[in-house]
Amino acid sequence: MIDPRVASGLRDLPPSVMIPRERILAGFRETFASFGFVPIETPHIERMEVLTGKGAGSDEVLRQIFEVTNKGGTPGELALRFDLTVPLARFVAKHIDELGIPFKRYAIGSVFRGERPAKGRFREFTQCDFDTIGTESVLADAETAQVIHAALTTAGVSDFTITLNDRRVLTGLLDSLGLESRSGSVLRALDKLDKIGADGVRDELTKAAEVGGAGLPVDQCEQIVELAVRFRGGEEILDDAMKALGANSLVEKGIANLRMVLEILAAAGVSPDQFRINLGLARGLDYYTGIVFETTVNGWEKFGSVASGGRYDNLASLFTPRRLPGVGASIGLDRLLALLDEAGRLKSSATTVPVLVANFPGTDPAVPVKLAARLRAAGIGAEVFPDAISIGKQMGYGSKRGHKLAVIVGPDEQANRVFNLRSLITRQEDKGLDLSVLEDSVESALEILKQEGAGP
Amino acid sequence: MIDPRVASGLRDLPPSVMIPRERILAGFRETFASFGFVPIETPHIERMEVLTGKGAGSDEVLRQIFEVTNKGGTPGELALRFDLTVPLARFVAKHIDELGIPFKRYAIGSVFRGERPAKGRFREFTQCDFDTIGTESVLADAETAQVIHAALTTAGVSDFTITLNDRRVLTGLLDSLGLESRSGSVLRALDKLDKIGADGVRDELTKAAEVGGAGLPVDQCEQIVELAVRFRGGEEILDDAMKALGANSLVEKGIANLRMVLEILAAAGVSPDQFRINLGLARGLDYYTGIVFETTVNGWEKFGSVASGGRYDNLASLFTPRRLPGVGASIGLDRLLALLDEAGRLKSSATTVPVLVANFPGTDPAVPVKLAARLRAAGIGAEVFPDAISIGKQMGYGSKRGHKLAVIVGPDEQANRVFNLRSLITRQEDKGLDLSVLEDSVESALEILKQEGAGP
Repeated sequence: MIDPRVASGLRDLPPSVMIPRERILAGFRETFASFGFVPIETPHIERMEVLTGKGAGSDEVLRQIFEVTNKGGTPGELALRFDLTVPLARFVAKHIDELGIPFKRYAIGSVFRGERPAKGRFREFTQCDFDTIGTESVLADAETAQVIHAALTTAGVSDFTITLNDRRVLTGLLDSLGLESRSGSVLRALDKLDKIGADGVRDELTKAAEVGGAGLPVDQCEQIVELAVRFRGGEEILDDAMKALGANSLVEKGIANLRMVLEILAAAGVSPDQFRINLGLARGLDYYTGIVFETTVNGWEKFGSVASGGRYDNLASLFTPRRLPGVGASIGLDRLLALLDEAGRLKSSATTVPVLVANFPGTDPAVPVKLAARLRAAGIGAEVFPDAISIGKQMGYGSKRGHKLAVIVGPDEQANRVFNLRSLITRQEDKGLDLSVLEDSVESALEILKQEGAGP
Repeated sequence: MIDPRVASGLRDLPPSVMIPRERILAGFRETFASFGFVPIETPHIERMEVLTGKGAGSDEVLRQIFEVTNKGGTPGELALRFDLTVPLARFVAKHIDELGIPFKRYAIGSVFRGERPAKGRFREFTQCDFDTIGTESVLADAETAQVIHAALTTAGVSDFTITLNDRRVLTGLLDSLGLESRSGSVLRALDKLDKIGADGVRDELTKAAEVGGAGLPVDQCEQIVELAVRFRGGEEILDDAMKALGANSLVEKGIANLRMVLEILAAAGVSPDQFRINLGLARGLDYYTGIVFETTVNGWEKFGSVASGGRYDNLASLFTPRRLPGVGASIGLDRLLALLDEAGRLKSSATTVPVLVANFPGTDPAVPVKLAARLRAAGIGAEVFPDAISIGKQMGYGSKRGHKLAVIVGPDEQANRVFNLRSLITRQEDKGLDLSVLEDSVESALEILKQEGAGP
């Protein structure tokens, strides 16, 4: 016998996980599409050269790459993708002339990273990305936040906060302090503020570069920490920030852009309570150049951001000389699901159909098949129990699976052209209902269960 | 610059391909679910041992396996799955106690085979599988055919034929001829009947085992070829077959099962014209033991089967001592799409939203965002053009993408609280419509376009 375990760091998704997952994904697809985003798919396997080109992934991600070879193939030539952004860049570079700009795409798929296995960390996980390529319009910036908002709302989450910044505010401040060359280490330190606190960030900013710090003098360190700590809140902080940070064209552009984004979001009818500015938000990745986003569920901030992204100057510079600015975000489906699960908010279920049609011993087996077909034709999902075993066992199966109702036709009922309708929740059974009104009877019974809070 | 090409044998799926593909997949998911099948997902990466266990895949498939390794991993330990059946067997062996039987699952996902690249053959392709595990009921056999029927119908295909056989008819005949030990080579030869004709099959059946044949004497060969050539058609052939093949308990069981399946399908309201019996149908794979299916689109038989499957005695014998019989089928999405494409039946489109809201130079950019949000709230997909470039160019974008209507608000319209509605199909424009009736106006315009055959 071969052990049926999955490889380390990987996992099976059983129906109880997949059913809410598929429902959320269907909502994401519908949301992305309603804004004019269109789906693309790229292979799970890419040429190694594409994935490891300069700047494609961080050193850490590149160390985690899964190499792929087949018999007759050249080792080191192919690998599994570690995100959907590098494949997007390659795709756009290759196809942009046929596609035209602006090009708005979404992609949902597995990505692979050979991380050290740990609780809640998997080597295969799903990303849900959407991007608008080929425009620098603030409308695309605002729309990205609007789509995050709409997608999470469709997923049944309403208590979240989208934190915004424009990277030019930070870049402008660093420029005016003469710190352009140290921006990488400064931004990395700032990104840890919520984890390690202001003193932790001070420590990272002031300690020498040789030991992984930014090597800043104390006064510069304080200006940066002040920006990150003080300027967090609603639109009102933008005026203060403008005064405090002084005249710098990048800072001004960044603040003006944030103002416009908030204005457009208000026009779109999105609640301002769900947006928050944080001028210290950097979002690690070096390639963000304008607006950046991250999204946390209120009270569940320890899970980190469930939807993040930002604007980049040039998506596909590795693959084409054509400059392609864009903005986009990625929703971390697995993290979101883990959070909803831990919060007890996932309606877990082992079935999606409300009705089980029993297979009564002695009844013509074509009868349940016919009744189920009638229910489906009326838009009601129905499962036929395949074996003519005891009705008690069939009802046990239905209760365990989460079916709401059972339709039962024994030989007597078959002869009299009637059926019994049993609620698998209340265990009440209506007997001898006329078969000609099957669909209506089932529909009203489901409606009643729904009103009682137990419906589908 | 890095060449943005995909690796050999792989491909990008652009929106024009993905839009109909996603529509078809959504229909499949809905169909599977309506019969009580529930989704599962297993990792793309499996342990090599799981994939290469005896009988897991054919020698050819095993030669095509993609090995996967990461830094620090052991070479030869992991590989990409080549189908969804072996992962299902592993999954069921591992989880059956929690799941209970009958267990009905569907799975949709990429599988990988390092085949020699050729037109229409890809190294990554999508399988859509559904199976009923843990029952030997004829209802599950019939339901498998019913689900293939319903899924293809949802995909907009109606002119297809599902060919059925029960492998016990063939096995019984071979038993009565004393040919059990040669069943593999006989069945492989029979499966080629439509490709190489009766004489080709005769040749394969009679030539010696050393040169790849079955080594049968001529009279036995003729009995087998007769079975395959003569017994093709509707239910009526079953009586003839019963007479001709004589008393053999396996043959009788097989024929009785086929009769029941046809009877149940008729009760389910499925047209008998779409089913055909072919007592010579073997479906290569050695593990089928009862009913087998294949499905061709009428007039497009050269594409081969787009949905195939059958019943097996024991799914997971590699992984568990527990005997798990089942029945299922796999729909070849890529083949089906290639066929529909070649038949000119794929409604290709570069967008799924009907309305483009223009971004008029000089109009407050919050206006189009607000109007689009209103349309979406009314259930009408709407895309905002992000840049305030010339209206001519925006309309060109909309026409090229396949938007049906454009909503246009210039500065004058903004001041007068009206909008212009332009058909991107007829190029007709209604001017000065009241903004308060935006949703209704757009809805009726779309309705008219639909009646004219150009709607969404």
